[in-house]
Amino acid sequence: MRPKNNFYLLKELLKLCEISVSNKVDNTVKVVSAADLEKSKKNYISAFFNPKYIDLLKKTKASIIIMNKKFLKYLPKGKIPLLSEYPEIDFAKVLNFFYPNSYFSKIDYESLSIDKIKEKYKKINFGLNFYVEKNVSIGKNVFIGNNVTIKKDCIIGNNVIIGCNVVIENSIIHDDVHICDGSIIGKKGFGFKFLNNKCVRIPHFGKVIINKGCEIGANCVIDRGSVRNTVIGENTFMDNFVQIAHNVVIGKKCILASQVGIAGSTFIGDNVVIGGQAGISGHLVIGNNVKIGGKSGVIKNIADGQMVMGYPATSFKEFVKKNK
Amino acid sequence: MRPKNNFYLLKELLKLCEISVSNKVDNTVKVVSAADLEKSKKNYISAFFNPKYIDLLKKTKASIIIMNKKFLKYLPKGKIPLLSEYPEIDFAKVLNFFYPNSYFSKIDYESLSIDKIKEKYKKINFGLNFYVEKNVSIGKNVFIGNNVTIKKDCIIGNNVIIGCNVVIENSIIHDDVHICDGSIIGKKGFGFKFLNNKCVRIPHFGKVIINKGCEIGANCVIDRGSVRNTVIGENTFMDNFVQIAHNVVIGKKCILASQVGIAGSTFIGDNVVIGGQAGISGHLVIGNNVKIGGKSGVIKNIADGQMVMGYPATSFKEFVKKNK
Amino acid sequence: MRPKNNFYLLKELLKLCEISVSNKVDNTVKVVSAADLEKSKKNYISAFFNPKYIDLLKKTKASIIIMNKKFLKYLPKGKIPLLSEYPEIDFAKVLNFFYPNSYFSKIDYESLSIDKIKEKYKKINFGLNFYVEKNVSIGKNVFIGNNVTIKKDCIIGNNVIIGCNVVIENSIIHDDVHICDGSIIGKKGFGFKFLNNKCVRIPHFGKVIINKGCEIGANCVIDRGSVRNTVIGENTFMDNFVQIAHNVVIGKKCILASQVGIAGSTFIGDNVVIGGQAGISGHLVIGNNVKIGGKSGVIKNIADGQMVMGYPATSFKEFVKKNK
Repeated sequence: MRPKNNFYLLKELLKLCEISVSNKVDNTVKVVSAADLEKSKKNYISAFFNPKYIDLLKKTKASIIIMNKKFLKYLPKGKIPLLSEYPEIDFAKVLNFFYPNSYFSKIDYESLSIDKIKEKYKKINFGLNFYVEKNVSIGKNVFIGNNVTIKKDCIIGNNVIIGCNVVIENSIIHDDVHICDGSIIGKKGFGFKFLNNKCVRIPHFGKVIINKGCEIGANCVIDRGSVRNTVIGENTFMDNFVQIAHNVVIGKKCILASQVGIAGSTFIGDNVVIGGQAGISGHLVIGNNVKIGGKSGVIKNIADGQMVMGYPATSFKEFVKKNK
Repeated sequence: MRPKNNFYLLKELLKLCEISVSNKVDNTVKVVSAADLEKSKKNYISAFFNPKYIDLLKKTKASIIIMNKKFLKYLPKGKIPLLSEYPEIDFAKVLNFFYPNSYFSKIDYESLSIDKIKEKYKKINFGLNFYVEKNVSIGKNVFIGNNVTIKKDCIIGNNVIIGCNVVIENSIIHDDVHICDGSIIGKKGFGFKFLNNKCVRIPHFGKVIINKGCEIGANCVIDRGSVRNTVIGENTFMDNFVQIAHNVVIGKKCILASQVGIAGSTFIGDNVVIGGQAGISGHLVIGNNVKIGGKSGVIKNIADGQMVMGYPATSFKEFVKKNK
Repeated sequence: MRPKNNFYLLKELLKLCEISVSNKVDNTVKVVSAADLEKSKKNYISAFFNPKYIDLLKKTKASIIIMNKKFLKYLPKGKIPLLSEYPEIDFAKVLNFFYPNSYFSKIDYESLSIDKIKEKYKKINFGLNFYVEKNVSIGKNVFIGNNVTIKKDCIIGNNVIIGCNVVIENSIIHDDVHICDGSIIGKKGFGFKFLNNKCVRIPHFGKVIINKGCEIGANCVIDRGSVRNTVIGENTFMDNFVQIAHNVVIGKKCILASQVGIAGSTFIGDNVVIGGQAGISGHLVIGNNVKIGGKSGVIKNIADGQMVMGYPATSFKEFVKKNK
């Protein structure tokens, strides 16, 4: 919810979000919005709970940080800490407050008239039974298959081809992208926390951005980001059944074979080739020109140009030595 | 098929099912139905072919047991054995007789009128192109996406949200469940036997029961049980591409990451966390509070509270030691 | 594109395809079509770039072979070599010329009238929202679920049952086949090459042939072949989420458990059993009666009757020894 005066007093916000803080702070500071450490600006509220992102904490412009007491030593001067036993849950509450309805998105029941959609998008080649919500932009020379759902605010570029039974929401699809049958693009990611048997769902108001020339196989799923975007770089090709979790960023000209899974918030460089059924853990950084063998399980960062294989993945040399 | 007089004579039944038995038995005993060892009652016919379930054989109330001669020593007194070289196939024949059409379920071609469905379920928020068969109950405040199929006899609770392109059959979905786009809930399991080039399909007349508060990701498949139900416990969350085979029972507040697969008839306790791409063999028992690392291959039972990883999965400690 | 005079002069063809060749050849030879080494006939153009297929090179009837200089020693006498640094890309150009529109197939926007389809296929049991393109043949006693798309030139045999949300193109489905909900049959395979930032897509004009009595689970994907067919043998059963890449040939009575992936151009014999989540690399030959344990990663050929497990897969004995 957007504040009426363009800001809330911190004490108002904490009350509205049902958050209790264990330290005394200046309750009259203004809060204008909430975001992750990287995107936050002055008078934003953010949170710190994963020590991997300590560099972002040091550089953040957020004024208020929800965090655990044990990390207080890393907090830069001038920031207001909100000490919490469950900073992730409290941050989710704040985000859900500023971005309501950003978890499971229902369809827009007012967009159900095929005739109106046809009238509006006269030049688009729709298949049988199309559904497009409000505020969707579709480029030239676009071909859409049967039973396709495109939800509000999506942007579809020129020369895009979309197969049958595809669902697209919260996404920007650039020119020359092909999306095969049965793929789900832009649904909310897998994020929630339980506290005393109550489930707090992590909001997902990021987008999926698929850059120019990409190809997405059949029955793939690409989740949208929570507080930032999920991004697929130009000319990256994915085979069938690929799973891309929230916040993943993939570079240009990567090749992902079938049944690959990439867990949340992992960065992948350019020209990376990933063999079938390989899995990559969350919050990792995979360099440029990396080759990952089929069925590998990657649980560490990989430097540029490396070739790895195995579970857990090691250098290809070591894998061969181990298994001869 | 239900018997006319509420029972068949055993000799009638064997003839109707085309089963020949290698031992002499009292052919005039009454048979009222067929079920697994656990659910059978007096005058039921059941079968025993997996030595793992010897305890169930000892406690069964079934009167007649199809079985192989080699297991005869385990049969409790007072039961009638039907000795068979292929007890699983013969049992499938009996089940198919009592539960015809319980394998691949066609849609009900008489339910195709959208206008009639709209009339009947006035208060439900349907998307484009909905299909609901007879005898379906849908609760309050339910949101259904586009191109959703709900087959006969399903029960959908209150506050349920169903995405687009979802197919639901033979299922009970309790309150507050979310099912994301493209998931298939309640289809028949993967069960058949070949005998002399003839395929006998194992009937699937169990249900899928998804308890309160669960979340099912996109493009998941949960197969219904064969002779009992597939059950997902309260507040269990699944990411995308999760495969749950027939007869699996999962406890409360479990977390299954993307691309996890659980083979048939496995039991999983409460608070179990399963990492992405992990697989669990069939007919296993996984205790409460177990953690299974990503990509693990579990082929043995796991006791409460254990943390395992690897292929085959071992204790986490051992996995780390082996791979350093 | 079919040649006007039933042939092109080689020099015309090379110009039309924008191919430059590094050796001097008789530019006036006639070219009638292009195909792989096995299917090519006299005056066909083919290509050789994978040393695995040297035997096919020796036996090919193609008159003209696109190839790299280093393989020239294997070329049988009487053949015309077209020396190329990127033979796969140049061959793709030729194939795309002879078979335009053989990559991503849009739906036929002229087939959108449900009334016309109903009129034409009076006896077929269609679900809600069916779509059938021109030149499709459908047998007797066929049951089709909701939201099914069948594209041009498909043949569907008798007694076939197709679930909901299934997409079928470029396929021949023989009698008694069952295809469960959400499966995608016959889409183009995962084939492309980058040259100087330009993507050349490998055409896919092969078919998917599913022989008599097969069962395909839910949310599976079977890609059609590029230059030859993807074939599933009689009475082969697949569970959910199975990925079959282009050009794969599977024998009779095989059983593929859930989440199995088979990479391109691999041959699998009869009676092969593949456990859940196993993966098989491309261009391999798996013999008859082979058993592959769950989650195995197969990267070598397997002889008849072997039982393997592990990643990389070894004999079952060795797997057990290694892991005790």
